[in-house]
Amino acid sequence: MQFKLTNEFIEELRGLVKQEDKTQAEKLIKELHPADLAEIFDSITTEEAKFLYLLLDGELAADVLIEMEEDVREHLLNVLSAEDIASHIRENIESDDAADMLMEMPEEKKEEILQKIGDIEQAGDIADLLKYDEDTAGGLMAKELVKVNENRDIAACFKDIRKQAEEVDEFYYVYVVDDDNILKGIVSLKKLILGRPNTKIKSITNTEVIAVRTDTRSDEVANIMEKYDLVSLPVIDQFGRLIGRITIDDVVDVIKEEAEKDYQMISGITEDVESSDNTFMHTRARLPWLLIGLVGGILGAQVIGFFEESLRIDPNIALFFPLIAAMGGNVGVQSSSIVVQGIAANIIDLQSTSKKLLKELLIAMLNGSILSSLIFVYNLFFSDSFVLTTTVSVALFAVIMFASVFGTFVPLVLHKFKIDPALATGPFITTINDIMGIFIYLGIGRIFYSLLLI
Amino acid sequence: MQFKLTNEFIEELRGLVKQEDKTQAEKLIKELHPADLAEIFDSITTEEAKFLYLLLDGELAADVLIEMEEDVREHLLNVLSAEDIASHIRENIESDDAADMLMEMPEEKKEEILQKIGDIEQAGDIADLLKYDEDTAGGLMAKELVKVNENRDIAACFKDIRKQAEEVDEFYYVYVVDDDNILKGIVSLKKLILGRPNTKIKSITNTEVIAVRTDTRSDEVANIMEKYDLVSLPVIDQFGRLIGRITIDDVVDVIKEEAEKDYQMISGITEDVESSDNTFMHTRARLPWLLIGLVGGILGAQVIGFFEESLRIDPNIALFFPLIAAMGGNVGVQSSSIVVQGIAANIIDLQSTSKKLLKELLIAMLNGSILSSLIFVYNLFFSDSFVLTTTVSVALFAVIMFASVFGTFVPLVLHKFKIDPALATGPFITTINDIMGIFIYLGIGRIFYSLLLI
Repeated sequence: MQFKLTNEFIEELRGLVKQEDKTQAEKLIKELHPADLAEIFDSITTEEAKFLYLLLDGELAADVLIEMEEDVREHLLNVLSAEDIASHIRENIESDDAADMLMEMPEEKKEEILQKIGDIEQAGDIADLLKYDEDTAGGLMAKELVKVNENRDIAACFKDIRKQAEEVDEFYYVYVVDDDNILKGIVSLKKLILGRPNTKIKSITNTEVIAVRTDTRSDEVANIMEKYDLVSLPVIDQFGRLIGRITIDDVVDVIKEEAEKDYQMISGITEDVESSDNTFMHTRARLPWLLIGLVGGILGAQVIGFFEESLRIDPNIALFFPLIAAMGGNVGVQSSSIVVQGIAANIIDLQSTSKKLLKELLIAMLNGSILSSLIFVYNLFFSDSFVLTTTVSVALFAVIMFASVFGTFVPLVLHKFKIDPALATGPFITTINDIMGIFIYLGIGRIFYSLLLI
Repeated sequence: MQFKLTNEFIEELRGLVKQEDKTQAEKLIKELHPADLAEIFDSITTEEAKFLYLLLDGELAADVLIEMEEDVREHLLNVLSAEDIASHIRENIESDDAADMLMEMPEEKKEEILQKIGDIEQAGDIADLLKYDEDTAGGLMAKELVKVNENRDIAACFKDIRKQAEEVDEFYYVYVVDDDNILKGIVSLKKLILGRPNTKIKSITNTEVIAVRTDTRSDEVANIMEKYDLVSLPVIDQFGRLIGRITIDDVVDVIKEEAEKDYQMISGITEDVESSDNTFMHTRARLPWLLIGLVGGILGAQVIGFFEESLRIDPNIALFFPLIAAMGGNVGVQSSSIVVQGIAANIIDLQSTSKKLLKELLIAMLNGSILSSLIFVYNLFFSDSFVLTTTVSVALFAVIMFASVFGTFVPLVLHKFKIDPALATGPFITTINDIMGIFIYLGIGRIFYSLLLI
């Protein structure tokens, strides 16, 4: 029942575009689902996409636009005329999707498109939405919704719904409002279908409705919809008036984006890039953390230079630099990622910081003891120097303890100061733990060598 | 409109539980949303949770069970009687949630509960679902759904719906089947409400319905629902018969779990742990990658030992071990994470491997040139040895090139062999690049020192 996009299919299509064979190309794509078409458009050039796009009929074209990747769509929209875009928005696009599309455009073209839409109400809705911050409930919501006055009965409600439903894609709940448009609750379609025609809406309204305000942050919106298993969420203004609704499919995107952001942060990538982005964008996204790594490496070199004396006494100390640095980095990343995930899942706030640190210390002591013992046994067999053997083991233990406390502490502190704790994962923690690890190792080495050799 | 769970609230509640003050405790919790109650239950002891749980009335109790964290719920279910559990399942729990709950239980208790449910149809549905693999569409779906024969009209359909809707929580679509229960399409509630009583269902059925088979993997189910923006997805057997449906809220959990799994993998954590899990579980989840790091460190020591000669000629070579190791690790993680994300988003398959590697090489060349030049300038000022200065810069460039190709290549290869590519992120890539980085550095050093000093 599903279409599986293959390289062969794309190549065939590109061939047809090259030959400008409109009839064959149209035949190939007109039966496809908009989401599949969008996937195709995402992986061909803008010119090819434009050629295919103009073959699609209005409603399908509009749906494809909605489904496309933002940056690829931006390119396509740039080469389409304001008239074409306006006519597709008029056709079928809900206000939130239209606002998403227009947001990326230059001011003049945005204005031109809004003018050309023609339908004042629709254009006005879109212009309203464009005012909200992208990362808030206002930026996520659509204006189209189905609502009914609490004083009507089911029969009258069905009439109201018929009038409103034309402009809404799908709806799962009917919102109940009073005469001032204040949100009073929701009625599920199930209850409407199961009820009798003369039942008052008020009597079947679920008044324990969860709503958000337009300025609620989008990650909070996602948390609420996920926690309460909602498929749609009403948005109200500061007076409690119903002004929009958010559907779960928009929030799924928010959830994915949040997860991707944290993932890129821990892997040392500063901007939202995808494998399909160009070389320059990738370089720009990766260079900043590498520069920090470079500075860290230079500081590391200075720490080692500071302990030159120790290295002259036993050059074999240098053998374990990579081990110490790597273990500090790994332990730090483990600890910090657990904290970041806990914060994202809203668990952390309910535990006290000291309890958290104590537990991390326990884990570090366990892991540290095991790993230190192992390297101790290894060195007993393979190293000639008992001082070095002891130094490496004790230092490894100390580094693991330090790295784990540091990796726990930093994201917690950032979170307290309302800075994204994910900043403290990946290269940041690794770099600092590298340097501190080497410092601890050489510091302990100096003490042990002076104690045990004299 | 929402309840914000605080530490104070939990402490107050625990106080009441300690005093066994049922009246006050009940007053405090009976107005809460099940999701909030579940959050409270997740952060108190099992005994406290049991005390509170037994104060809840049937339907609320059932909902709380569904919302709880799996491992915490397991503890609570263990201390509840089979009779209690069965009565709550009978009350209100849909088949998929009931199956999720029973799955974790010992065989005998599972049997006992199924027997005590009483309603043969409901117990049978649950027993059916227990047969499916947890990670497939069969494991995600619920048996309760609303369906109608394609030959009926809207008026008759409403009658059918009234009969079926009692046992379903919410529904957004009515599934259309033929006389053999073969899935023919869907009708949205909107269409039913907007249509006329004598309209044939067949004529308003959307036949381009997307369905999955019971054995479809759950990550594929998530991808499909996300891509096509579905709130519910029908599940069919090998003959095309409709046997269940999956709703978006279950899939949101799958999406979150997948993202968390990748995140934990890149941060070097092997099992699914949360900050609330105990010390032992954390140690067990973190130790494996640390052991690999330890072995890597020992190999690193052997590589350095192998180049002892070079270190005797210029001990300052050791100064840049941390720099070289860190940069190799960072670059490797960046490259591999981009590939892993691309694979997860289904983008990678559409690009050829050679194109991918070429692009990574370009990015690495850009970043490598910039970073090598910087460290070259630094060493020109701060190092006495021109040979060392050249060695460090050339080696850094080479290490960045190697790490980036390796970080791209390994996850692609794993993916080709159907192994989770996320395995090749984090500590794995870091460890190998650490060792290879040191090897490349010292290898280049040996060549340069012999060339330039003689």
